[in-house]
Amino acid sequence: MRLSEGVEWALHSCVVLASAPEGVSLPAGRLAEYHELPAAYLAKHLQALSRAGIVEPVPGRRGGYRLAQDPKDIKVSQIVSAIEGTGPAFVCTEVRQKGPAAPAPSGLRQACLIARVMWQAEQAWLQELNNWALADLAFAPGSEAYAKTRRWLLASKERTAPRPPPDGRSER
Amino acid sequence: MRLSEGVEWALHSCVVLASAPEGVSLPAGRLAEYHELPAAYLAKHLQALSRAGIVEPVPGRRGGYRLAQDPKDIKVSQIVSAIEGTGPAFVCTEVRQKGPAAPAPSGLRQACLIARVMWQAEQAWLQELNNWALADLAFAPGSEAYAKTRRWLLASKERTAPRPPPDGRSER
Repeated sequence: MRLSEGVEWALHSCVVLASAPEGVSLPAGRLAEYHELPAAYLAKHLQALSRAGIVEPVPGRRGGYRLAQDPKDIKVSQIVSAIEGTGPAFVCTEVRQKGPAAPAPSGLRQACLIARVMWQAEQAWLQELNNWALADLAFAPGSEAYAKTRRWLLASKERTAPRPPPDGRSER
Repeated sequence: MRLSEGVEWALHSCVVLASAPEGVSLPAGRLAEYHELPAAYLAKHLQALSRAGIVEPVPGRRGGYRLAQDPKDIKVSQIVSAIEGTGPAFVCTEVRQKGPAAPAPSGLRQACLIARVMWQAEQAWLQELNNWALADLAFAPGSEAYAKTRRWLLASKERTAPRPPPDGRSER
């Protein structure tokens, strides 16, 4: 069983977005640059996060992505499912119905015991990921990441501030 | 996240082997036939179960595979790990070390919080699979599978019983 690396990238990117000051959104390219990730692949994962309602695109020249919900309300399980899909990891193909021990129709009312055990374990996994919110990752006590990320984001905002119009008039 | 279909096949095949009467071993081909599974793929999975010490090959003309341990001592987690590998589903590539929020060396003593959360969830999954033994699947109360499988295995044993030597002398 292997989770795609997109899960790691999406979680780290959501942590960066959770650290963004009010009104700051980040284009996919800047998010990729932040952790030196491949921009095209990350863009695809950001689209998946957007479809899942975790991030949202902000249009315009200074647009990009921002969180669509409070980081306290975004569960780690949601981010993982946005990337990996919500289907079960164990797919039951009803092997039990083939062969000499196939149950009578009345025995098929309940799912196969093997599938039930496997799905129960998946529920335990998901429940554990449900216990963690994005805010727990982004604002972890004792971590300097939040302050460092915020400084970078503010500096980045200044770098991408609208330039004065080409005729030289100030916007102020 | 998706488990390979080999997990389902291996679990069902181990259930069949757990139902085998004393001294009966089953060739990979017969096990495949039982659930109408592709023989070549199942053979590969049986080799993996053998490497993990869950089944063992019995050499000879009436040989095949039998369980290497008491089904009460074989955990579902062992069968799943034999097929899927024992490595973590979430692989941490230390994304945190890249970019402007990279922690100081002292901050690297502990694994990344994102990895810790993901691994904790995997532990919950594995723990749940650890709570179930092969015997719980094979000898589930109310299931007719055990009796049906045993009848098939005994009939199968008779069909594959050694024939009298070609000169016609009886072995008795």
